[in-house]
Amino acid sequence: MQRQIDHELNKLRAVILSMGQAVESAVEEATEGLIERDPERLKKVREYEDRINAYHLEVDELCLKLIAQQSPLAADLRMILAIIKINADLERMGDQAMNISLNVRDYLGKDPLPEAATIASMAHTVRKMVRDAMEAFVKADLTLSEQVLLQDDVVDEAKRTTFKRLIEVMKKDGTQVEGAVDLMLVSRNLERLGDHATNIAEDVIFASTGKDIRHGGFHSGQKS
Amino acid sequence: MQRQIDHELNKLRAVILSMGQAVESAVEEATEGLIERDPERLKKVREYEDRINAYHLEVDELCLKLIAQQSPLAADLRMILAIIKINADLERMGDQAMNISLNVRDYLGKDPLPEAATIASMAHTVRKMVRDAMEAFVKADLTLSEQVLLQDDVVDEAKRTTFKRLIEVMKKDGTQVEGAVDLMLVSRNLERLGDHATNIAEDVIFASTGKDIRHGGFHSGQKS
Repeated sequence: MQRQIDHELNKLRAVILSMGQAVESAVEEATEGLIERDPERLKKVREYEDRINAYHLEVDELCLKLIAQQSPLAADLRMILAIIKINADLERMGDQAMNISLNVRDYLGKDPLPEAATIASMAHTVRKMVRDAMEAFVKADLTLSEQVLLQDDVVDEAKRTTFKRLIEVMKKDGTQVEGAVDLMLVSRNLERLGDHATNIAEDVIFASTGKDIRHGGFHSGQKS
Repeated sequence: MQRQIDHELNKLRAVILSMGQAVESAVEEATEGLIERDPERLKKVREYEDRINAYHLEVDELCLKLIAQQSPLAADLRMILAIIKINADLERMGDQAMNISLNVRDYLGKDPLPEAATIASMAHTVRKMVRDAMEAFVKADLTLSEQVLLQDDVVDEAKRTTFKRLIEVMKKDGTQVEGAVDLMLVSRNLERLGDHATNIAEDVIFASTGKDIRHGGFHSGQKS
């Protein structure tokens, strides 16, 4: 027989999953807007962000109720605390997608720069990180979580390379400064999206094992 | 007679307060490093960040134990959930201070730019926001929380102005591009610090009133 708390936790997981899908879609619209130079796709980001913000409040309320009504212990409590953090990360990822859509909107009003292609490839990796982090959460898949952590290094390196190239562009041609700044902001927001996906992967590891791998440390938590 | 949970909550509040002070110090060293052009002050930021990260893990563990052992309800539970979020914000503020110290270190190797003065004034406001948010938390002061929200608009406006000026610098003089990019990153990190202080102020309001004022909405929570 299923425990009442399992039923509630499954409901909560389903909401987080829908929220994660809305984040993926927001990032997709924002970055495809850049690649396809299509302002219509950018407009859709706000719709997704509204949805993400509504989920954010809903998840916090569900967690509060669940703790108050079920007095969860050990593994269940760890899962709920992980969900509270994942919820906060997903909400910020929605903000980042929104920021990207605004940076891209600014950029589309200026001369195209070839560096946009590097950013498109960076966006591809970040979107995979977001998908993988959510899949790792749903399946409690530790191997996939660790892959997300590794992908983050790729994104950080891509951002450094993009910054260097854009600085060269700006040094050579003052008329390209504004477009280059827009792209720098896009690449910085993508890097931050990758950081949040990494946080989610770390929370999945914590929820499943009780191991806190943040700050390079291994704090073993309670086992259920 | 004091309840056991009040004793535990006070302990938790004291840790969060020490953590907040470490964040204030980290931001102070990072920004004074810019103003005084002193790399020695920048080095201290890492020490504070290590301390902040240790507090971060400690607070999460304390919250987990408190929920598991005391089964808190209503106002107590709301306070613990607020602390979990404030903890996450403070940890990221430590990261932001660290980012600023790295950006400033890069900047100090280049020609000084007059725009550094605007950033010094922006840093002043952000530090006040951090202090006020922590004081609002300690005193459960809603008026002070609302003042933090208002100060955030000032910081956002200062960041926009700084960006515009730095873009003009870069357009006119290619040799200043790298220093200007460093300062843009400092001002962007300061803006994010202000956002986190705002989150803390919102959490103080939530913990005290049960009102969720995020995303412009008013979700009334349980009253104790």
